[in-house]
Amino acid sequence: MEKVRVGKKILDENDRYALENILLLSRKNKLCLNMISSPGSGKTTILARTISELAGKIKIGVIEGDIQTDLDAERIRATKAPAIQINTNGACHLSAVQISDALSKLPIEDLDLIFIENVGNLVCPTDFNLGENAKVVVLSVAEGDDKPAKYPAIFAKSKVLLINKVDLLTSGASIDFDLDKVKADARRLNKTIEIFPISAKTGEGMTDWCNWLIDAATRV
Amino acid sequence: MEKVRVGKKILDENDRYALENILLLSRKNKLCLNMISSPGSGKTTILARTISELAGKIKIGVIEGDIQTDLDAERIRATKAPAIQINTNGACHLSAVQISDALSKLPIEDLDLIFIENVGNLVCPTDFNLGENAKVVVLSVAEGDDKPAKYPAIFAKSKVLLINKVDLLTSGASIDFDLDKVKADARRLNKTIEIFPISAKTGEGMTDWCNWLIDAATRV
Repeated sequence: MEKVRVGKKILDENDRYALENILLLSRKNKLCLNMISSPGSGKTTILARTISELAGKIKIGVIEGDIQTDLDAERIRATKAPAIQINTNGACHLSAVQISDALSKLPIEDLDLIFIENVGNLVCPTDFNLGENAKVVVLSVAEGDDKPAKYPAIFAKSKVLLINKVDLLTSGASIDFDLDKVKADARRLNKTIEIFPISAKTGEGMTDWCNWLIDAATRV
Repeated sequence: MEKVRVGKKILDENDRYALENILLLSRKNKLCLNMISSPGSGKTTILARTISELAGKIKIGVIEGDIQTDLDAERIRATKAPAIQINTNGACHLSAVQISDALSKLPIEDLDLIFIENVGNLVCPTDFNLGENAKVVVLSVAEGDDKPAKYPAIFAKSKVLLINKVDLLTSGASIDFDLDKVKADARRLNKTIEIFPISAKTGEGMTDWCNWLIDAATRV
């Protein structure tokens, strides 16, 4: 899309809503993380386990983005955390206006941390600022170790990389995934990225990730 | 996006190029399949194994779509098949004009079947006709069995569903994937979809898929 160039940056509609969201969140001193990955990397399972592990420590709410269905919000609500489902009806990413609406429906005064689970898509959500404090990219080991090279933008823009399903690496299943290569490739794109190898299924690595969240939510 | 409604459908630029592509391919009697999936479902591995198994039976060329890198085209060329790499530089799907250009660079007179490997994205490529005869959607068992429900459009629009990495189901790894549920959900969206459970790594199920390709290429 061509943009008109003038002295000041003209905010498009998405950026305007994103700015409103970040102002609201910072006024209320809440941490907001935008979780992005391919379909099936395990975002909802990670969130459900994270909420359980942080019960009594951090109060978490979730905004669930899906093209169709409210399966994911139901899985979050089963953990007793509040969840708002957004159905994009075909659209490939969430937009800031949808987050603005969802934030008005969440009991944010009672929360420390709001997770946005974006639509399963490693490409498009990267370019849409929602007003979050940081992006968290999730990569499952089943997707292969070439993803930072092939989809660099999201690895360059994220504050955290969760490498999920690491239980598969020691399960006897034939998975070609070089963890050190992925870490090195991600750090080449993004020197300060935090990397947590985890299994949301077995719980491996979840403590480090949860401790990082406690620190980040306290720092806000 | 709002579209102007008039008596005749006005073709947009992508549809015009798609129409040119399909006319070219049908004049030359070539089969063209547009392969769509999430990142890391195994599209390139499937193509490399398919080309090897069909060596001497069907001549295959490949158009590789990636956001960055030409890793995939190199993997295809290692099988001795001709491959053209398209880098979209951030764009989340291939467009028909890119295919038009790539077709002019492939030795299509010498080929029976042209595969297009789209950008890894289960959402956006669904809406862009490239001039292919049919779409082939690939789902890896590691992505979970809720994908037809959550991403219905591509399952509704594809002629073939390849369920890849089925070796993981019997590997001892903990994978929650109900094959019958996925088949039923896909057929609910698309009564005539052909479904092949395969492992491009072990070769399981590849014969049925390759026989389907031989039939389809002969029928063109």
